[in-house]
Amino acid sequence: MNPVELISKKRDGVALSREELKFLVDGYVSGNLPDYQLSAFLMACYFRGMTNEETMAFTEIMLHSGKIVDLAEIPGVKVDKHSTGGVGDKVSLILAPIAAACGVPVPMISGRSLGHTGGTLDKLESIPGFRTNLSIAEYKDVIARIGLVMIGQTKEIAPADKKLYALRDVTATIECIPLIAASIMSKKLAEGIDGLVLDIKTGRGAFMKSYEDAKMLASVLVDIGQRFGKETTGFITDMSEPLGVAVGNWTEVVESVECLRGTRGINDSSSDLMEVTHVLAGAMLVLGKKAATLEEGMGRSKSAISNGSAYEKFLQLVAAQGGKIEAIENLEGFPLSGHSIEVKAAQSGFVAEIDPLEVGLTAIALGAGRRRVDEPIDPKAGIIIKRKVGDAVESGETLALFLTDREEAVASSRGRLAGAFHITPQKPPKKNLILAQVTTAGTKPF
Amino acid sequence: MNPVELISKKRDGVALSREELKFLVDGYVSGNLPDYQLSAFLMACYFRGMTNEETMAFTEIMLHSGKIVDLAEIPGVKVDKHSTGGVGDKVSLILAPIAAACGVPVPMISGRSLGHTGGTLDKLESIPGFRTNLSIAEYKDVIARIGLVMIGQTKEIAPADKKLYALRDVTATIECIPLIAASIMSKKLAEGIDGLVLDIKTGRGAFMKSYEDAKMLASVLVDIGQRFGKETTGFITDMSEPLGVAVGNWTEVVESVECLRGTRGINDSSSDLMEVTHVLAGAMLVLGKKAATLEEGMGRSKSAISNGSAYEKFLQLVAAQGGKIEAIENLEGFPLSGHSIEVKAAQSGFVAEIDPLEVGLTAIALGAGRRRVDEPIDPKAGIIIKRKVGDAVESGETLALFLTDREEAVASSRGRLAGAFHITPQKPPKKNLILAQVTTAGTKPF
Repeated sequence: MNPVELISKKRDGVALSREELKFLVDGYVSGNLPDYQLSAFLMACYFRGMTNEETMAFTEIMLHSGKIVDLAEIPGVKVDKHSTGGVGDKVSLILAPIAAACGVPVPMISGRSLGHTGGTLDKLESIPGFRTNLSIAEYKDVIARIGLVMIGQTKEIAPADKKLYALRDVTATIECIPLIAASIMSKKLAEGIDGLVLDIKTGRGAFMKSYEDAKMLASVLVDIGQRFGKETTGFITDMSEPLGVAVGNWTEVVESVECLRGTRGINDSSSDLMEVTHVLAGAMLVLGKKAATLEEGMGRSKSAISNGSAYEKFLQLVAAQGGKIEAIENLEGFPLSGHSIEVKAAQSGFVAEIDPLEVGLTAIALGAGRRRVDEPIDPKAGIIIKRKVGDAVESGETLALFLTDREEAVASSRGRLAGAFHITPQKPPKKNLILAQVTTAGTKPF
Repeated sequence: MNPVELISKKRDGVALSREELKFLVDGYVSGNLPDYQLSAFLMACYFRGMTNEETMAFTEIMLHSGKIVDLAEIPGVKVDKHSTGGVGDKVSLILAPIAAACGVPVPMISGRSLGHTGGTLDKLESIPGFRTNLSIAEYKDVIARIGLVMIGQTKEIAPADKKLYALRDVTATIECIPLIAASIMSKKLAEGIDGLVLDIKTGRGAFMKSYEDAKMLASVLVDIGQRFGKETTGFITDMSEPLGVAVGNWTEVVESVECLRGTRGINDSSSDLMEVTHVLAGAMLVLGKKAATLEEGMGRSKSAISNGSAYEKFLQLVAAQGGKIEAIENLEGFPLSGHSIEVKAAQSGFVAEIDPLEVGLTAIALGAGRRRVDEPIDPKAGIIIKRKVGDAVESGETLALFLTDREEAVASSRGRLAGAFHITPQKPPKKNLILAQVTTAGTKPF
């Protein structure tokens, strides 16, 4: 096969066969095809998209470029959750222990901070001692023992996706729905799951800025799940303001732990976080055959918080993966940032908007995210939102607090964070947090 | 500047500034930017195009990546011709000596065979001893002495174009009008010309398959010429059958020499070749101030053939660039191919079509072109068309003759060449050869 002919075909809008896609992916992974041909192909995919058949084949090829973990020996219906990424999105840290505490085994492989969004791995690694780089054997051992495990993508899992993703990242070819879908699903299908709940975020803080794009991505993801025999449910959720109050790494662990303990998340500024968490956890319980309906699942999810079993499961997870329990039990013992700066309101009124993209980018500048792939993260750095959208605020009151060791980031972050808050005289209308549910039956408003 | 941001901008249809384009081109040429980023950028250009401003800036950046030859010391208005490439297109070999014989200095930098089309350099190099790799000093010396020089792109001329073109060739990003225009013009503007005549070919044997694309390319080329202060005239010409009778290298030299001698090209199967040649040469004489009108220029062009001055100029060129005059004066002395195969008509009727793409690809298979950049060319290999479109043919008569040393190519070439001829019972309507003239005043039918 001639790679230039295959690139031309895609460029001209002709669908490639499975064999042709495999030639390109395998050639790239083995080093037989140069990266400049793959990047031209990926850009052509950006413009031409992929047919359903191509997306399925592409997913399957990446999935089979590595190992598929076999969790058949673990009893129960294994269910995972995946979010397309947002700002302040620490749902996995709360929901995975909830589902596991309710008897659904959760084998979760997560990612790192990406662009303006945080990453579950970076958050977990802010817990002193917590290891995310388990081997596949350790991964199986932990889930067998406690019904829950949370690790990063290993070299064995979908290596083709890893290599292609790195190329897409530096060639402006990330934002392509079939490529995004194939990348997500090739990793998820390799985990050994039986079912999957998807959180497709939409809005300024998400990768899918428009509802239509989010809906399209959700349908493709659900279709792939079905094609590969995994029951898959998607929820399109709002990411037009940060979720909950904390943005960063340790700050997000703190908020998650407080929600798991039940001391946060009920009628306070973390309520939005827990609303999303209970819906997604409820859906996991349905897929995991531990609830008949979403409502029943949500009820069990709330009970797992109130009866302490979810928090207990989280402590088991920390211990099983080498983390220090004391750090969780005594949250105040964590080192403090050199600077803790309050951002005040310049006028009175109601918070009408908190731009999550600006908040996310500010968090990166503070040290909570990466500007380059190899940049270390400061686990202490982050932002605490003090007023959420809809909240009343008086001029001079604190809108947010930010934490950093970077002296040089203080002045610019103060202005940038203040600028992310839009204050209006009228109280803004309440917005929907969960916009729609997407299943193989279609998309229906939630 | 962040290359990923620049790729994203182009991908999203936002025009880049001169500085941004220069950052990309210079970064690539210097090795600071990787080829995979440039190829993604080029594919985004394929889909998004370029504004006029971008095309001008891109041309200028590539032009200034190398030397601009100064021919101010050569008296007269220097004029060159460029063709976008076709099958059997040996116009340069005939027209350049004509224009020079009429007193217009012709400094011509040409290319090699590309895709299914032939290259002037390869044709000239089939003349024993002929050197096309002159230094810039030799180039100036030859044109000063005989008013004509024909060489290949040197390392000094638009090196950025050379490097980018090689990348486009292997990433399916050749077919982009602004990139094609900038590539052509950056080289032509570096030659030291004052005026330029363009032959933009359209049809199955051309790179611009549609008339609309050819017209678009012609306008962009003429605009660039004007912007850089070079008088530029374009002609859109038909490439729906091979031009003249010979396709190959030495075979095309033979046809050219016979046309230069005047023993061919008048009321025979090379008439189409000479029609294009006289129009383009006439336009060169107008730009070169040796004729007031195109008609006058065409008349002088024909006289240069009939009075022998063009043939004499060609012999001077061959001698000046190291070629053996005897090879031209005794065309029959050239070595013969191992196989000389006649392709016969399977039915009687009229030739309605000779697919130039199939003829060009067959010529490559015979050894007359390249399948890889580094493949040597067999100068003897080629095709002689015996019946042109519109000619009557009886079943069993010869349609074409092909010449090759490649035993393995004989059987497939026989079938492929026969298949390129479409024979119908009715004589096809005569088609226009010169479709339109494109100047800064616009496009008008010819």
